[in-house]
This record gives sequence, C-alpha cells and structure tokens, in this order.
Amino acid sequence: MVMKKKESLRGAVPLSHFYLRQVVRPGDLVLDATCGNGFDTLLLAELAGEGGQVWAFDIQPRAIAATRTLLEREGCLAAVHLLEAGHERLAEFVPAGLAAAVFNLGYLPGGETSLVTDPVRTVSALGQAAKLLKSGGIITVALYTGHEGGPEEAQAVHEWGASLSPREYNVWCSRQLNRPPVAPYLVLVERIRGGSC
Amino acid sequence: MVMKKKESLRGAVPLSHFYLRQVVRPGDLVLDATCGNGFDTLLLAELAGEGGQVWAFDIQPRAIAATRTLLEREGCLAAVHLLEAGHERLAEFVPAGLAAAVFNLGYLPGGETSLVTDPVRTVSALGQAAKLLKSGGIITVALYTGHEGGPEEAQAVHEWGASLSPREYNVWCSRQLNRPPVAPYLVLVERIRGGSC
Repeated sequence: MVMKKKESLRGAVPLSHFYLRQVVRPGDLVLDATCGNGFDTLLLAELAGEGGQVWAFDIQPRAIAATRTLLEREGCLAAVHLLEAGHERLAEFVPAGLAAAVFNLGYLPGGETSLVTDPVRTVSALGQAAKLLKSGGIITVALYTGHEGGPEEAQAVHEWGASLSPREYNVWCSRQLNRPPVAPYLVLVERIRGGSC
Repeated sequence: MVMKKKESLRGAVPLSHFYLRQVVRPGDLVLDATCGNGFDTLLLAELAGEGGQVWAFDIQPRAIAATRTLLEREGCLAAVHLLEAGHERLAEFVPAGLAAAVFNLGYLPGGETSLVTDPVRTVSALGQAAKLLKSGGIITVALYTGHEGGPEEAQAVHEWGASLSPREYNVWCSRQLNRPPVAPYLVLVERIRGGSC
C-alpha cells in the first residue's frame, strides 16, 4: 500500500487526516466510529501498521461492506475489527488506550441521506471515546450542517466539547474563514499529556 | 540544542508549534514576523536547521535583544537575520519561497502593554507574507483579544483571511471550546499545493 503523504488542508477531512498523521504511530490502537465508505479506516490502518489495531463501526451494512472491500483491496483487513453496530455501543468492544478516534458525522456519502447520525448517540459515543483515549490521544469530529438535523447535531457536539475539563482535554473547533458558513468543519479533542485523568 | 518534541495543544502558541513542526523541514526559509522574546524564532531556527534561514522582525529593540540572547545561548544565531523593523516592511528583506511565517500579535510579554501590533500594519504584513509562501507553506497567527485594540485587530485579520481566494489558500480559524471566549486563538493560512497562484 502507498500512503499519500501530503494533502492540502482543503476541508474538514484533510485537516482531520493532518492531525491523525502526526499522532498515530505503528502499533497504536485506533477507532473509526463512523466508517462510511472506509477511507478514514484505511488511513488509520495504514498509520497503525501491522502491529496496530483498528475498530471500525457503522450501523449500515452497506458501509461495512464498502469498508471491507476497500481494506481487502489495500491489504489492510487483518488489523481491522469491523463492527456493524451503532457507535454509541463502542465501549462494549474497544479497549482503553486509544491513540485516535475518528468521527465523520452526517450521512453515508452515496447512501440514503435520511439515515444520519443523531445528537444523542453521537454525544454518547464521543463521551465513551474520550474516556478511552490515552494521554496525548485525539478525537477528530468532522461536522456537517447542510443536512436536516445537522445544525442540531453540531450544537450538541459543541456543548459536549465545552463541557470537558480544560485540565484533562484540549478542545479546538476549526472553521474555514474563506468558505461559506455551511462548509464542514472540525472539532479536535486531545487528552492532555500528564493531565489529571 | 534539544527540541521538545511533544507539547499538548493547550493554547494558540502550542497549536501553532504543532503545525510548524509538521511543515518546516531542514533547509527551509522561514519568517518570524513578531519575534518578541524569541521563542518562536528559536523553534523556527531549530526546525529549519543549519541549511535553513530565518528572518525575524520586531519593532522593539528590547525584543531584538532578548531574541539575540536566546539564540546565542542555544547556538542558533548564525542562521537568523534579526531585523529591528516593523513587520509591515518584511517584503523589503525576505525572499519568496517561505515554508512558514509566524505572527504572534498583541504586546511583548513582560514589556510595555501599550505597545501593541496594529491592524493596518498587521494586515499589510500578512498580505506580504502570504505572497511569499511557497506551495504548501503556512502562516500561523496567534490572536489576542484581551487587550485594548485586540478585538479590532482580530476582526481585521478575520476579514483579511476571508478575502483570500479559496483556490489559492486554505484559511482556518481555530478556537478552544472549553476555554473562555477571550482565550487566545489561531488563524492558519496554507498556500494550496498546486494552487493556481
């Protein structure tokens, strides 16, 4: 497999990938909470390498199938636990010590646009993921406000992020100044090194 | 010299350093538009290495002296052009092809708090720096709104960032969700790889 090393920070997903490339190292445990078509899962599998492990969730069978196909083609399936389940159940499956957790909210690209992540389950999953992060580990959350329910979900993520202790987590919200306000954007949560939790 | 490799993203300056560490490589040309006490200049000098060059500006003699002392102590002075001049004059001295330009606005820490960067000169300097960036190069701007004139300067930087062509530059504004609204924050400008300029 060949990793694309540099990509411009042209959108929330490339910015998420920028962070993941700096933080995830071979052997790490990582999580894709919303595998969708599998592109984030593939990046995580590449970064975590042969000694690493990836847990990838999606509630839609179509997403799990697409991700499986992509990972097989790229020779990365062995290190990935594919779980057809909502991300709000992630703590049942994923151990503590995560280097990274990726959330790409909204609907499955190319899928049914009425099937979207929802605020209550997303915030529950984020809370579980935050507890499982190791020191210096990160969560990236790509947020979309252009679909029905999107603004409410984004608001819920903001409130959740604002509620995290600044002694335990750094929480950044990054938006593009020269794009329309509806452009997708990124929330980054970092568990502070040497923090009190 | 020993570089501290990992720092938590606890504030605008650490986030700026995170980006600089990923982007600046040995041999690069880099700019510190506001050297202040020299900490950003030192990081840039370390990252650009012996083959690199750093241009560091400050209008205050005290800042230039502090930066010189720090760089000498760390054995990094040789690669740094220290210029006692306002950053709005940077295009007179700095060549094209910058990998990074750092702006840390507001007043000199420990100095006279009435001596602050101002919106007109800052926006002029930012425009010059943006033109001097190489493809994939970045500007980081740490913004402070807690001093008199700070909110107006931040507003001017926002308007400048919003005016940049999205075909040529990615412009991100990153703020901390779990800190008070007055917390310093970061604007990041990236010249797009393969962009049209």
